[in-house]
Amino acid sequence: MATQKKRIVILGAGFGGLFAAVEFERLARLLPGVEVTLVDSNNYHLFVPLLYHVATGGIEPGNICFPVRSILKNGGAAPPVVFRECQVQSLDLEKKRVITDRAELDYDYLIFALGSTTNYYGIPGLEQNIVPLKTIADGVAMHNRILESFEAALFETESQKQRELLTFVIVGGGATGVELACTMALFVFKTLERDFPTVASQARVVLVEAGDGLLHGMRSELGQLTLKRLKRYRVEVILNCRVASATATGIQTKDGQLIPSRNVIWVGGVKPDPLAQAIPAEKARDGRIIVDPNLEVPSLPGVYIIGDCAYALQPGTSIAYPQTAQTAVRMGTYAAGNIARVMMGYPACPFDYKYKGDLVFLGRNYAVGEFLGRVISGFPAFYMYQGYHLVTLTGFRNKLITVIDWAYDYFYRQSTVKLR
Amino acid sequence: MATQKKRIVILGAGFGGLFAAVEFERLARLLPGVEVTLVDSNNYHLFVPLLYHVATGGIEPGNICFPVRSILKNGGAAPPVVFRECQVQSLDLEKKRVITDRAELDYDYLIFALGSTTNYYGIPGLEQNIVPLKTIADGVAMHNRILESFEAALFETESQKQRELLTFVIVGGGATGVELACTMALFVFKTLERDFPTVASQARVVLVEAGDGLLHGMRSELGQLTLKRLKRYRVEVILNCRVASATATGIQTKDGQLIPSRNVIWVGGVKPDPLAQAIPAEKARDGRIIVDPNLEVPSLPGVYIIGDCAYALQPGTSIAYPQTAQTAVRMGTYAAGNIARVMMGYPACPFDYKYKGDLVFLGRNYAVGEFLGRVISGFPAFYMYQGYHLVTLTGFRNKLITVIDWAYDYFYRQSTVKLR
Repeated sequence: MATQKKRIVILGAGFGGLFAAVEFERLARLLPGVEVTLVDSNNYHLFVPLLYHVATGGIEPGNICFPVRSILKNGGAAPPVVFRECQVQSLDLEKKRVITDRAELDYDYLIFALGSTTNYYGIPGLEQNIVPLKTIADGVAMHNRILESFEAALFETESQKQRELLTFVIVGGGATGVELACTMALFVFKTLERDFPTVASQARVVLVEAGDGLLHGMRSELGQLTLKRLKRYRVEVILNCRVASATATGIQTKDGQLIPSRNVIWVGGVKPDPLAQAIPAEKARDGRIIVDPNLEVPSLPGVYIIGDCAYALQPGTSIAYPQTAQTAVRMGTYAAGNIARVMMGYPACPFDYKYKGDLVFLGRNYAVGEFLGRVISGFPAFYMYQGYHLVTLTGFRNKLITVIDWAYDYFYRQSTVKLR
Repeated sequence: MATQKKRIVILGAGFGGLFAAVEFERLARLLPGVEVTLVDSNNYHLFVPLLYHVATGGIEPGNICFPVRSILKNGGAAPPVVFRECQVQSLDLEKKRVITDRAELDYDYLIFALGSTTNYYGIPGLEQNIVPLKTIADGVAMHNRILESFEAALFETESQKQRELLTFVIVGGGATGVELACTMALFVFKTLERDFPTVASQARVVLVEAGDGLLHGMRSELGQLTLKRLKRYRVEVILNCRVASATATGIQTKDGQLIPSRNVIWVGGVKPDPLAQAIPAEKARDGRIIVDPNLEVPSLPGVYIIGDCAYALQPGTSIAYPQTAQTAVRMGTYAAGNIARVMMGYPACPFDYKYKGDLVFLGRNYAVGEFLGRVISGFPAFYMYQGYHLVTLTGFRNKLITVIDWAYDYFYRQSTVKLR
């Protein structure tokens, strides 16, 4: 076991980084004299899977943000893990140093967990004209933009412009896209219809997907169930449709269609954080860093990559683990455990995680999912979805308030406060 | 009774404007064919008396914002009052027209209820260097600034700068100032002490007041009780102290003191909305527009001023009604009623409202107040305070969530999420 003081730095307090930090807290007694620093540019952990509810007024922003310092144990002068709110600017892998806007942090072991950003795939005009959904600010901005579009439509005299304002196009038919399309339809066709009776009849919610089915990567039954449900909510689904370019007034598709809309929401893809590109290691086609089964970068001993930036193969296959919160959580716990094992002189343990299932929320009282290999849908799936998120939400107060928000949402309506 | 279609425009959805709108809804059956339009630059009513709780993380921003369209009745195609989210730019009093960023609105009767903005009294450097507390964005920004100061102090190596970062100065010993000082002390000395154990011992909360006592305008016993309470919470109170100038690193007082601080919060005064200055009518020394007992501007028939912009004398005295939410609510109801009476051919009714009392919240389980002429303090006053705000908060969900927020705050801690 090492005798000099070892320093571990974790970059990112998303699902991966946070669970790595929590694992180090758990192992603190086995690692005396080890300094663990968790770094993030925000002082909170964002519960991304419920972010789209913020966009449609179903949940208050603060209720899916959890202050990192409150989650971590606080052991007086020497807590097992310290948190520092810094923006990471660059890495000096040779000197083993992280350069941030506030300080330089030296490390012996690094856990890189900076996650992903929106991928625009170089489509002309996309980044400038669409509404992203990655940060809590994006969620609030999207909520405001929907309300602002209705408000502007009230005063608009040209019918073409009014239609553009009231058409909400979601690009990307993955889990986020279909969940967003559902709550968006409820928000637009139920809540806002009451507030803006004179213009609401013109509103449209459109979901555009490049593939030939929804929920790519899950079982095809789920996609079909979802398609039926979306139609019931008056969502127009367009399959096999790729975006060629975007302007402020709509999108042009590769097959020559023009979809006029001033509210195009892009949930069509992610790419690893820009800092991942700067790491001189072998990468997969999607930009993820290829790691060995222990989640370490082969050419950079002591550097572990987890979550959306990591390209780790599932044992015995040539398929990488998907970029989900579930994967990130398990990787965080594993990477921390592996660093501890290495420090204590034991061999590292290869990452292995069995996919348990997925649940996709489709509006009031309905969800579809796959659990232990079986397709589930309707009421039972819905309650599993709600229950799962409640269990994983941190803090009793947030759980309680989310229940009330959901109950209120169910019985009454989504919030229409346009905070700036 | 008038036969042609009359238009009433209400500017501002604060306490005054909102209650005027609600009164018009109540009177709708008596006023057939009357168009009432409520205008505000935000689509929500802000419950200002609890805004300081947002600054100290006790309440989520969305829980004191109430969408105006949800408060108003919605009668399908022709609701009694319509809301329009517009920024008022100017008034054409001759043509009886309101010019907004989105439309021009003609009126026969105008209720001017735009409220007040922060008054810096021309003190050099004040506006550029202090944190205001008037809008919901101010509340969120202040909350972030407090957290950011602690975060920056962690990385600061110069002890002078560290002290400046951790000194929170509140200028203004009125109700808002003392309520803010109390929750600020709880936030800084309880919640943040746990999160930032290495620097928290240097934190200071200072309350600066120009007069020789706190809560000017209320009975002097209340000020004395408040002073005792603030000392218990480790708030340093400086009386008889006027600010001469402000810089980014502190304030200079008229008697030559320098108070080093990077967090000076100014709740030292308000002035009527800038648009009130543009109204060619007689004004009081503080800029408020002098109205007759019916709340109408003598030189501008059909124009009613209510709330913080109105200078209305209390019957039989030479003292104007104070600029409080209570006054604004009553004025709103009166002005709407008077317009209805005039339209129906009855004489207007002079404004008369008996002051019921005041309550000032001083942290956990304690409040001081005056109710029907008697001084109350401690536990009973605290429960009256909480109960009063709960009763006046709009919407069951907000009431419920505020109770939980308070309860959580009481048993646990204030939120430390730094939303951007």
